[in-house]
Amino acid sequence: MTIYQKLENAITKNNSLVSVGLDSDIAKLPEQFKNDPTPQFAFNKATIDATHDLVCAYKPNTAFYEARGARGIDELKMTCDYIKTNYPDIFIVIDAKRADIGNTNKGYVEFVFDYLGADAITLHPYLGQEALRPFLERKDKASIILCRTSNQGSGEFQDLKINGKKLYQIVAERVTKEWNANGNCMLVTGATYPEELAAVRKIVGDLPLLVPGIGAQGGNVEKTVKAGLNSKKQGMIINSSRGIIFASSGEDFADKAREETLKLRDEINKYR
Amino acid sequence: MTIYQKLENAITKNNSLVSVGLDSDIAKLPEQFKNDPTPQFAFNKATIDATHDLVCAYKPNTAFYEARGARGIDELKMTCDYIKTNYPDIFIVIDAKRADIGNTNKGYVEFVFDYLGADAITLHPYLGQEALRPFLERKDKASIILCRTSNQGSGEFQDLKINGKKLYQIVAERVTKEWNANGNCMLVTGATYPEELAAVRKIVGDLPLLVPGIGAQGGNVEKTVKAGLNSKKQGMIINSSRGIIFASSGEDFADKAREETLKLRDEINKYR
Repeated sequence: MTIYQKLENAITKNNSLVSVGLDSDIAKLPEQFKNDPTPQFAFNKATIDATHDLVCAYKPNTAFYEARGARGIDELKMTCDYIKTNYPDIFIVIDAKRADIGNTNKGYVEFVFDYLGADAITLHPYLGQEALRPFLERKDKASIILCRTSNQGSGEFQDLKINGKKLYQIVAERVTKEWNANGNCMLVTGATYPEELAAVRKIVGDLPLLVPGIGAQGGNVEKTVKAGLNSKKQGMIINSSRGIIFASSGEDFADKAREETLKLRDEINKYR
Repeated sequence: MTIYQKLENAITKNNSLVSVGLDSDIAKLPEQFKNDPTPQFAFNKATIDATHDLVCAYKPNTAFYEARGARGIDELKMTCDYIKTNYPDIFIVIDAKRADIGNTNKGYVEFVFDYLGADAITLHPYLGQEALRPFLERKDKASIILCRTSNQGSGEFQDLKINGKKLYQIVAERVTKEWNANGNCMLVTGATYPEELAAVRKIVGDLPLLVPGIGAQGGNVEKTVKAGLNSKKQGMIINSSRGIIFASSGEDFADKAREETLKLRDEINKYR
């Protein structure tokens, strides 16, 4: 099974393009986890159990775990192990936004693909394809390259024009035509910029896209889905983090997370 | 004391521009550490004790620690704590090559500046200044932005031309003129490209540069120093990793590390 097939199977199984972003900021966890010995894991476990039949992917962002040092890394691993053991069909994206030079990347490859056992990692393009080979060579895992990010100031460099093309378009072209020899590349394009998302889709054919920025960041679901679907009416992982996991800060947080995930899945499917 | 002053003091104290890269790959540690309960820390401690009076900085790269998961992170923290306790004047750069969008970066800020207590972190520029604010706002810490990296394929995007200027030159300009309101920015420019290093120095005035690529990567010391010095005959942290820490794989590794550090310091100083 190729890594694209694993993603397609996850999408088909739950008829869902939704990824839940497990950005489990320790400061925002519901009161009941304050004295838990492994609060981030316990919160994630409850969230995952409440949503696993409605999603294609989970996407923990490493920043929220590293903030707690070694303890956080332990709980991130517990979270990944829990998903793999109980819901092995679901795609795990580690939103790590890494990229170093050649050999050094092997450390991140070991961390994300072997120690955590995730299916995919997000990566910065700035150092070029040659630097990222240790990731790209892992045919069994997806390399998700940042292309047009969801933040307000993403255009500062990404929109610079080189011979009439914007930098993010050149990244999209290169990744599609040159970096993807192993059929394991994806791109990050934010839901907050549907026109740029549509431009990327034109460049990349059926390549799967990771699309953050729905929910708290304000991306519009209809525009996002219409701009980003591929010819198979999928090819997107649409992520919401805070809008789902912190929909309630009370004891009903897991029920509310399920409610929001269901709502988002169905709204997305309306436009597929 | 500003963060630039801390760096200048470290350089002056040991009359050294040398940074030792603590890229303590577990697979490459000398035999004697194989059964150590904290092998990376024990190796680092011996290396630090042998070189602390010859360097301005230590630069651990997170990849080599994350490769071991939570255990590695623990030993990275032990390493930083050891430096801060015993050699508090020495500058600590965490070579993490991070960058996420706004709020998410707070997790990395906590990890690197508060949990590890480092002086500086390396960052990707691709998401723009707006995204990196949580780092830039920390006046007491340095944000070291990747500009022209030392790897063979670094030109793929970094050399793309925008209105006659290369992308890495635009990064250097923006960081110097716009991002550095708090006087805490630096740039990464590889020793493997002395012409580009000279071009960056022209753009950035006296801004301090982190210069990796000496030693195992093949950068030439004379060319590097002549291209990169600022008007105070400093303004550079010149890093060597494998060339120092793995100069010997035997029991004399610390002596050899000292020897190589001394040799590099003196060769650099010959051209200052």
